[in-house]
Amino acid sequence: MKVTVLGTGMIGKVIVKELALLPGITRVVAVDGQQAAVDACLAFAGSAKVQGRVADLGDPDVLVDVMTGSDAAIAALPHALSLSAVEAAIQAKCHLVDLVGSRYPEKVALHERARAAGILVVVGCGVAPGILNVLTARGVELLDEAEDAVMYCGGLPRHPQPPLWYQVVFRLESVMGLYTRPALALEQHALVQRPPLSGLESCTFPEPVGECEAVYSDAHSVAYTLRGKVRRLSEKTVRYKGHFAKMGVLAELGFLSDEPVSVDGSEVRPRRLALALLEPQLQGGPEQDITVLRAIVTGKKGGNPARFAWEMVDVYDGERRYTSMGKTTGVPAVIAVEWLLLGRLPERGVLTPEELFVGERFELFLAALRGRGVVVTASA
Amino acid sequence: MKVTVLGTGMIGKVIVKELALLPGITRVVAVDGQQAAVDACLAFAGSAKVQGRVADLGDPDVLVDVMTGSDAAIAALPHALSLSAVEAAIQAKCHLVDLVGSRYPEKVALHERARAAGILVVVGCGVAPGILNVLTARGVELLDEAEDAVMYCGGLPRHPQPPLWYQVVFRLESVMGLYTRPALALEQHALVQRPPLSGLESCTFPEPVGECEAVYSDAHSVAYTLRGKVRRLSEKTVRYKGHFAKMGVLAELGFLSDEPVSVDGSEVRPRRLALALLEPQLQGGPEQDITVLRAIVTGKKGGNPARFAWEMVDVYDGERRYTSMGKTTGVPAVIAVEWLLLGRLPERGVLTPEELFVGERFELFLAALRGRGVVVTASA
Repeated sequence: MKVTVLGTGMIGKVIVKELALLPGITRVVAVDGQQAAVDACLAFAGSAKVQGRVADLGDPDVLVDVMTGSDAAIAALPHALSLSAVEAAIQAKCHLVDLVGSRYPEKVALHERARAAGILVVVGCGVAPGILNVLTARGVELLDEAEDAVMYCGGLPRHPQPPLWYQVVFRLESVMGLYTRPALALEQHALVQRPPLSGLESCTFPEPVGECEAVYSDAHSVAYTLRGKVRRLSEKTVRYKGHFAKMGVLAELGFLSDEPVSVDGSEVRPRRLALALLEPQLQGGPEQDITVLRAIVTGKKGGNPARFAWEMVDVYDGERRYTSMGKTTGVPAVIAVEWLLLGRLPERGVLTPEELFVGERFELFLAALRGRGVVVTASA
Repeated sequence: MKVTVLGTGMIGKVIVKELALLPGITRVVAVDGQQAAVDACLAFAGSAKVQGRVADLGDPDVLVDVMTGSDAAIAALPHALSLSAVEAAIQAKCHLVDLVGSRYPEKVALHERARAAGILVVVGCGVAPGILNVLTARGVELLDEAEDAVMYCGGLPRHPQPPLWYQVVFRLESVMGLYTRPALALEQHALVQRPPLSGLESCTFPEPVGECEAVYSDAHSVAYTLRGKVRRLSEKTVRYKGHFAKMGVLAELGFLSDEPVSVDGSEVRPRRLALALLEPQLQGGPEQDITVLRAIVTGKKGGNPARFAWEMVDVYDGERRYTSMGKTTGVPAVIAVEWLLLGRLPERGVLTPEELFVGERFELFLAALRGRGVVVTASA
């Protein structure tokens, strides 16, 4: 079996290494636009099964070409390339597991085309979206009547630095949407948009995390897939305490706006200045990171109030040199591909983790995560 | 007697009107760079004693010219012109009362020259610096041993608007120093500089003000004139609660810095963008304002702990159409000129209100303020 991995960055290289460890897989093709990234990935994987390839993944024809002939592919690409990857997979008739959760309505609109091509496309199959969606959907299906689902997730530095107690993993620009775009949620079974940085609340996670805070962020696919099944649903992003209050001041006073402002005769987009000023304050420190996750679903079961909750506090894996972000995002995709190739996922079309890994597969999914060091526990 | 008023802005026009009401004064010359400002001042004063004059007060020779032949002058000028006005008064041999308190060391260096010219120059003779300095010095002289002096002052909008609960009276740039420059204070009788926006504390003023907050601001002349007399001294600027916390976030994250930052290939000074973004959020609403002031001096008297404190909450004067800022800043200067011309201030040289209005003159000074609607009360 041959699997292609699109993108060999921080998450892609973990995926390549994990895939190469699977006995059923004979060839892993690691594709990236940068020779240096491919080389680093090959060194990191350290397996003769892995073959590197440099290709322009921004070109849709190239995407089709690199997937053609593979049994499956995993896309660990920037958001902007994700929809093209889904389209290319259909053309190449290659199963695809995509880490990206954005643009769900456009992706699910390709469901019939994917089905006709005989492939399964799993979208948003990382940690959040991904594991978090599965836990939430599981809570909903365990209840007779699901009232409220709240989903928390955050990537945190192990050693937070002032003033913002956060480290950007990629570029600050890639998380700017959290501070500037409305967040999709469900109220009374209907889609609603919540203002960016709203719903600020304190929350606590077990050691070594401690006191945090959370604001609404986009719920992506679960807002659609669970719409008829739970009355209220929202996702929240977690940071160390103090972070959002400061970013909230910047947003409130207009410093994150993309509208040009005239400054001494020239036009300045405040957000561009914010990126330039904040980026150096959100970097440095070791790559050790933490990923926290919590799903709480409440409602009724057997006529009584009931609640299901799960939690994860995942830390940097020094032995395997996996960042927590790389591990928790990459492992669900690796499991999906493994199961696909083993014939355990006979569904075809464009589907989400919360549709695939519930029911009888749920405990097996948690066990598979645990087997690769991603431990989710049920909580009170 | 003829008095010249330099600058006919918000404060200058109140001064002109008040001077014209004094029986001993036969002529008030109101000078400004702008014809419109002079016209507005004449209309506001509504007195045949007042004569307008348009002149470029940025030109030192013009300053000398407009003061020559006057018995006294009051400078209600921007900070940048204040030192030139003191120098010009010496050349013109014209007594001068200056509202501005900055650059005290440079002004007091002209003391001997002013004395030789036979004139009195009163510097920083407004509300703060001005009234506040007098109260503090009074507290110090009433004690046998003065330990600690804390001076609070703030100009507040009567109807505060979100998000910053403050209205700039002139231009935001004129108060930017408060957010960006170190604040002079005394510790163990020595001059120290405190970081901008430091020392944030909550404080409360009587209705209609309520909950406020304060940070260190520059103590100006009192740091020099009271240096040997009180162990610790600091001045704090008051705003409604929430204001400084937000400005503090901007400062901490670099958005008030004057260092150019490269943004998309061009250089941007963050502070210039901050001025452009914040100015519209600090304007609007009626001109009704409030001025709060509090001086607390503690130490020992007769071997026992003792404390002297005064407070003022001054509001917009709708009858006279005096802003509180115009009234509380202008009235002390008018009193100084009145006393000067009556021969009650025989001192010559460059002196401060805290050197002139203490001792036996203190209660008379408070009574004179009260007579013009500026009420300071002793508090517990």
